[in-house]
Amino acid sequence: MRMDAVTIFPEYLEPLNVSLVGKARARGQLDVHVHDLRDWTYDRHNTVDDTPYGGGPGMVMKTDPWGEALDAALADGYEAGAHDPVLVVPTPSGRPFTQELAVELSERPWLIFTPARYEGIDRRVTDEYATRMPVCEVSIGDYVLAGGEAAVLVITEAVARLLPGVLGNAESHRDDSFAPGAMADLLEGPVYTKPPRWRGRGIPDVLVSGHHGKIARWRRDEALRRTTQNRPDMIERCDPACFDKKDREMLSILGWQPGADGRFGPSPDNVEE
Amino acid sequence: MRMDAVTIFPEYLEPLNVSLVGKARARGQLDVHVHDLRDWTYDRHNTVDDTPYGGGPGMVMKTDPWGEALDAALADGYEAGAHDPVLVVPTPSGRPFTQELAVELSERPWLIFTPARYEGIDRRVTDEYATRMPVCEVSIGDYVLAGGEAAVLVITEAVARLLPGVLGNAESHRDDSFAPGAMADLLEGPVYTKPPRWRGRGIPDVLVSGHHGKIARWRRDEALRRTTQNRPDMIERCDPACFDKKDREMLSILGWQPGADGRFGPSPDNVEE
Repeated sequence: MRMDAVTIFPEYLEPLNVSLVGKARARGQLDVHVHDLRDWTYDRHNTVDDTPYGGGPGMVMKTDPWGEALDAALADGYEAGAHDPVLVVPTPSGRPFTQELAVELSERPWLIFTPARYEGIDRRVTDEYATRMPVCEVSIGDYVLAGGEAAVLVITEAVARLLPGVLGNAESHRDDSFAPGAMADLLEGPVYTKPPRWRGRGIPDVLVSGHHGKIARWRRDEALRRTTQNRPDMIERCDPACFDKKDREMLSILGWQPGADGRFGPSPDNVEE
Repeated sequence: MRMDAVTIFPEYLEPLNVSLVGKARARGQLDVHVHDLRDWTYDRHNTVDDTPYGGGPGMVMKTDPWGEALDAALADGYEAGAHDPVLVVPTPSGRPFTQELAVELSERPWLIFTPARYEGIDRRVTDEYATRMPVCEVSIGDYVLAGGEAAVLVITEAVARLLPGVLGNAESHRDDSFAPGAMADLLEGPVYTKPPRWRGRGIPDVLVSGHHGKIARWRRDEALRRTTQNRPDMIERCDPACFDKKDREMLSILGWQPGADGRFGPSPDNVEE
């Protein structure tokens, strides 16, 4: 996969040299090109922003540097044999970035990121490139950042670990929270490793029982416990067919019961006002 | 505010020297300490992980290095006069990180981050520190990362920009997506700046009309358009009292109508199957 990013803070993207993404680059699985937007400015102050039409606070990033930077990145990529780019625009106004979208993006050969600062990029830039390639405006969550660079790191890492050969152990995807499989739509519960005692704290006996069925059941119960606690929305969205008899017992203990449509919700006498 | 982070990839946190967070540090508004977890390992391989009790794929981070690293960070902070720490644990199993939580964290004097790798940290570590300070397990979104470091960058940036004096222009918070104010619970629409024509593309006439009321209305309509498109969940959650007569006209044009409880949803003849 080829990846380009245009930014006024290239040094913010240094973590792309580290850890999983850094290793994927070293192995040639990921070809990353970071461009400094200010290379396409021609005034003494390297201006990339101006006041918004219609007034109001904040500044808007100008069309010209973005247009020239993207044209240059595209020309360079096509010349190197890259094809079928997607423009990935991190913005709080985008659609939510999810594991499903990470999987989709991981199947594309070329991603071009446009992390913005200030109030965002002049709309005509995305309008222009949308005539030539798919544009994916994404938000990594319901919070406000100072710019899109942190989102580029997040999206790149989520996508890179899905590329063939990047994760050493093929099994390590399977139990991921948000990944399809045994724990689909449930958060993972607590994990423990040696030593058996630490600062007076032991580990749950079941984990050293050697009884695989009981261990799987305990993990499932803990996943239900944590999910009802931290992400009730995920339980409410779950197809009730996902819950077996033991799941239903545990949900009942946790104060959840099926509603008229079969989906689980907190019991009425258990809802905090 | 003091901030500590313990990680096996200190270099991943280099962006904390850049841009808004870097400037806040330079100005003394934010005091950041990054610690290398491996400094608290004593074997030749600097081992920080081991196999999970109960079996299964992946590795779990060991109690000992984390305990010693956190004790050292705490001792150092208390000695420097820091107080009332919160342990912020990035994990996909946490509760969602939101702008509201960013505001809460920005009001605390001291945040200690524990970005993990592999399958996470032995549960006894958070159990132990939970007896001494609030523990906040947070997830920045429904996707899987290779580790918690990217989440630390995201959370720090969202929190730092809320600290007093960090953002130059006090007004720049007001129109943020997800921030309380005029655009509460709506995404921001498109923005434009000079020149008036770029690659054959103009700007909406209303923005140069000088008519403030019409400009505000146009922005509100565009915010409604983008929110219905990218975040229908946000419109559905909105208290219908937020929508004035013109909002309701626009929502109707966009194919949305009030339901039995007054809240807006897509019109039945407008829902994609």
